[in-house]
Amino acid sequence: MKTYLVVILLAAVCSAFVAVNNAADQIPYPEGYHKWTNTRTFITGYENKEPKKGDGFHDTYANDRAMIGYQTGHFPDGAILVFDVRTAVTTEGTIAPGTRKHVDLMLKDSARFKDTGGWGFEEFTGDSRTEGRLSGERQKNCFNCHAGKKQTDFVFSQFKE
Amino acid sequence: MKTYLVVILLAAVCSAFVAVNNAADQIPYPEGYHKWTNTRTFITGYENKEPKKGDGFHDTYANDRAMIGYQTGHFPDGAILVFDVRTAVTTEGTIAPGTRKHVDLMLKDSARFKDTGGWGFEEFTGDSRTEGRLSGERQKNCFNCHAGKKQTDFVFSQFKE
Repeated sequence: MKTYLVVILLAAVCSAFVAVNNAADQIPYPEGYHKWTNTRTFITGYENKEPKKGDGFHDTYANDRAMIGYQTGHFPDGAILVFDVRTAVTTEGTIAPGTRKHVDLMLKDSARFKDTGGWGFEEFTGDSRTEGRLSGERQKNCFNCHAGKKQTDFVFSQFKE
Repeated sequence: MKTYLVVILLAAVCSAFVAVNNAADQIPYPEGYHKWTNTRTFITGYENKEPKKGDGFHDTYANDRAMIGYQTGHFPDGAILVFDVRTAVTTEGTIAPGTRKHVDLMLKDSARFKDTGGWGFEEFTGDSRTEGRLSGERQKNCFNCHAGKKQTDFVFSQFKE
């Protein structure tokens, strides 16, 4: 449960410091991430009549280079982890994912993001694939939470076969 | 909702005709399927105090060859689709997957399974990776439901980016 709270808190902190990004800060949208490995899934707030910002289907995806990181404990440059949040739609006892609320991602680039453990952070809201919302300064707020996970290369999630 | 019911009904029909498999019928356990593309996810029965057999986290995974099938409408030999069912564990408003209940799979092998649209069906219960439970005759019961989906090469699920 603690881990869920940390992940949700992380997203909340990132989202609380939103600003339109400039080109220098921009991290690209992670095209095709739904085809990557889904490393964890959970649902929050399904009982809330008025869902909060963080409520819904939470899924984490990892690209091939990020999968190396899960195995070795060190995420190589090019590794991308995606935290995807969709609405949770309840119908006759079934809960399925609905529309996308936002996508957060971490991109490993040791040289570019040397001040934040080698990781850059970004968020795209709704269905946007073009407008990252976190400025360089505010990306650092994401890292403030991740900084406590140095032993796993600043990554919260794990992958178990 | 209809689709969910069909998928669950399919699993129920498969499971209702269970017998220990013999070597000739055996379809191997789909090693590493958690790393494949997760094409859909939903939860059923989360409100049931006494969960039914089919209740829980339902996830469908597709290997690379099955992804070709989603794109082209024809699934090539070697395509595997996995239907994974885990318990749904509710803790303080969060639902997460728990232990595995069973894994059903479809393997495309046009020559071997020519009487069932080229697809073979198998089920592994609990954590077993060695004991497929469906005999050749009983695998056909799975196909009886899939036979109605000839226009999508006998596959119920779809993949949308």
